Amino acid sequence: MSSGKILVAQGGGPTAVINQSMVGVALEARRFPGVTRVYGALHGVRGIVDEEFIDLTQETSHNLELVAATPSSSLGSTRDKPDIAYCRRIFEVLRAHEIEHFFYIGGNDSADTVRIVSEQAREAGYPLRSIHIPKTIDNDLVGNDHTPGFPSAARFVAQAFAGANLDNAALPGVYVGVVMGRHAGFLTAASSLGKKFPDDGPHLIYVPERTFVLERFLDDVKAMYERHGRCVIAVSEGIHDASGEPVATLLAKEIERDDHGNVQLSGTGALADLLCDEIRSKLGIKRVRGDTFGYLQRSFIGCVSDVDQREAREVGEKAVQFAFWGDADGSVAIRRTGFYSVDYELLPLDFVAGKTRTMEDEFISESGTDVTDAFRLYLRPLLGSGMPDAFRLRGARVPKVLHRED
Amino acid sequence: MSSGKILVAQGGGPTAVINQSMVGVALEARRFPGVTRVYGALHGVRGIVDEEFIDLTQETSHNLELVAATPSSSLGSTRDKPDIAYCRRIFEVLRAHEIEHFFYIGGNDSADTVRIVSEQAREAGYPLRSIHIPKTIDNDLVGNDHTPGFPSAARFVAQAFAGANLDNAALPGVYVGVVMGRHAGFLTAASSLGKKFPDDGPHLIYVPERTFVLERFLDDVKAMYERHGRCVIAVSEGIHDASGEPVATLLAKEIERDDHGNVQLSGTGALADLLCDEIRSKLGIKRVRGDTFGYLQRSFIGCVSDVDQREAREVGEKAVQFAFWGDADGSVAIRRTGFYSVDYELLPLDFVAGKTRTMEDEFISESGTDVTDAFRLYLRPLLGSGMPDAFRLRGARVPKVLHRED
Repeated sequence: MSSGKILVAQGGGPTAVINQSMVGVALEARRFPGVTRVYGALHGVRGIVDEEFIDLTQETSHNLELVAATPSSSLGSTRDKPDIAYCRRIFEVLRAHEIEHFFYIGGNDSADTVRIVSEQAREAGYPLRSIHIPKTIDNDLVGNDHTPGFPSAARFVAQAFAGANLDNAALPGVYVGVVMGRHAGFLTAASSLGKKFPDDGPHLIYVPERTFVLERFLDDVKAMYERHGRCVIAVSEGIHDASGEPVATLLAKEIERDDHGNVQLSGTGALADLLCDEIRSKLGIKRVRGDTFGYLQRSFIGCVSDVDQREAREVGEKAVQFAFWGDADGSVAIRRTGFYSVDYELLPLDFVAGKTRTMEDEFISESGTDVTDAFRLYLRPLLGSGMPDAFRLRGARVPKVLHRED
Repeated sequence: MSSGKILVAQGGGPTAVINQSMVGVALEARRFPGVTRVYGALHGVRGIVDEEFIDLTQETSHNLELVAATPSSSLGSTRDKPDIAYCRRIFEVLRAHEIEHFFYIGGNDSADTVRIVSEQAREAGYPLRSIHIPKTIDNDLVGNDHTPGFPSAARFVAQAFAGANLDNAALPGVYVGVVMGRHAGFLTAASSLGKKFPDDGPHLIYVPERTFVLERFLDDVKAMYERHGRCVIAVSEGIHDASGEPVATLLAKEIERDDHGNVQLSGTGALADLLCDEIRSKLGIKRVRGDTFGYLQRSFIGCVSDVDQREAREVGEKAVQFAFWGDADGSVAIRRTGFYSVDYELLPLDFVAGKTRTMEDEFISESGTDVTDAFRLYLRPLLGSGMPDAFRLRGARVPKVLHRED
């Protein structure tokens, strides 16, 4: 018989729907007769070692539903990556509070945290059931058709490029939009879902799955600019040269690294500005503009996929069911079962933890600067209902009077 | 008796609702018995001199409604500012096509274009009725309670900061969001409408109506960071030092100027990066992130104020009514008549043209880094219905066991 106390925490970067998963855990857990308390740790594993817990059992279901619909991690998050000493402190706290079920919502780094905690618990002989709940806008968890949080961020990116394309058509020039994604280009590729007419942008898409060659990039831009009189470009922040060095770091004066050894790529407009400078100086195009989508793409309130919301809730619910009715620790994963429907399964933690999925070859066009129809078919149902649409004038030309073309 | 041919064009930066005004002209004009053709000039006044017209009369009302709901300028825009020679070419084209009603949708530069065209027509003895239809996300037209396009951009900025605040609360640090607005801080100030709880960001707001002093800025950030453990900052791209020099240009290697002599401030992440570097190096805060909202804030598809849509349509309709039932050229203006309702009037062109409204003192707090309740009351009804809302856990604390605080 378990203690009846469970703990849920949120790690890594926030998403538009990560609270759905937390609320899914909190509400589903209370349907299990043995559960007495659902605690939430503030700021992820950091809150566990600091014993910073709140009692989610005392929240009303009404307020939980409102929080579920609110973006970002309502419990707070952390970038801490527990080592063995850190995990010992986690056990001390869990044991002191008689917590025997641990749910951690996050990406592949968080999955690795759950894996270490799970191993430490087993080694320490502590009866802990640890479940990782998937979340990442990067869509880079192995074993998942896609990850909660990605569809809403993808929707933001698609809508942003749909608008940027319209803006660029009105005032022609070159537009570079830099999208999050360190190793996986899924989110950048989502820009393609903002296209409607054949001459719409993005006309070029650069993902980290393909080596970035500056000269080839400039040739691509020149060709598109000559064809359309304008060019809209989607670039992943993680693009790199043949040696694997990120293009972004080529000009970064100071490289800031987080605790995971990751280079800081977001929160700076450097990459967009560098690329714009190159286009301006090498191609002689005057109107060149660059935007870095930055934190807007994962935090914007009011741009969310209803499919994503539903699935993020379900992974939380299923995590509780796997924990109480199953007999193993693991990572909840989304499996696609129809067009469009999904089911959930529990994968071994070491299958998911610390690993990075990148875009499959079948999703990237042969040119390396576009996506395939397979990708469009993959992504479209995830974006959900009510996607805004763009329309054009059909444009019956009025014959010229003064400048007659004979 | 007029020729029955009218011309509409769109100038300056696109907005989310500028097509509403164009469609307002096109549909309302056809209700006037004498009107035979409604032409649209492609890419503003540039399209007039190049005789690039499409016949909007041949568009279906169904497609016009779909285009009206699409952001950006569907006719295309221009940054050209006609001089006298340019205007002579405009007349030649208008006369050749027997166009006697000219509607130009744009900001204060476009109003100035209409003013020059109107004067030239009078001097040339050509019977042209010229009406300026207001549009600008900067909200900087004099004589207007507010301008179409501003409410939707303001809504984007408010939603962006609501989300950025939630993200920053989850992973605390300093966040700098740079917002468009060369001389007027209205759009940056709109960030304040993203606040809900007293400790929510933006904690500091910097508008071009107040001199920016770097040392004071750093003191402000330090104080807020100490109070909240984090700090969200909204900064206008147009902030400048005591001499009037934009902070953005202090580090810009190359200053690009457009045809209006305006310094290029958007489409680069330089200002955000500079401010982040200062905070990082001078205050020793590690997690500092900057985003430049760039073109997203005026082009994003799917973030629009229904109030803005309605009013943008109405200024187009009223422009036609003023043209056909009135006896003067002018600029359509929005006047607030209730909480919340508006009416429209026609102002003399030279009252609006080329002038810049900035934020009234009553809208800026004494500290210079926040807005007043008067501003919140002014802006809130413009944002329209269905604004997304943010909710929090109420957070009943669980007593610590290991780290007891006695």
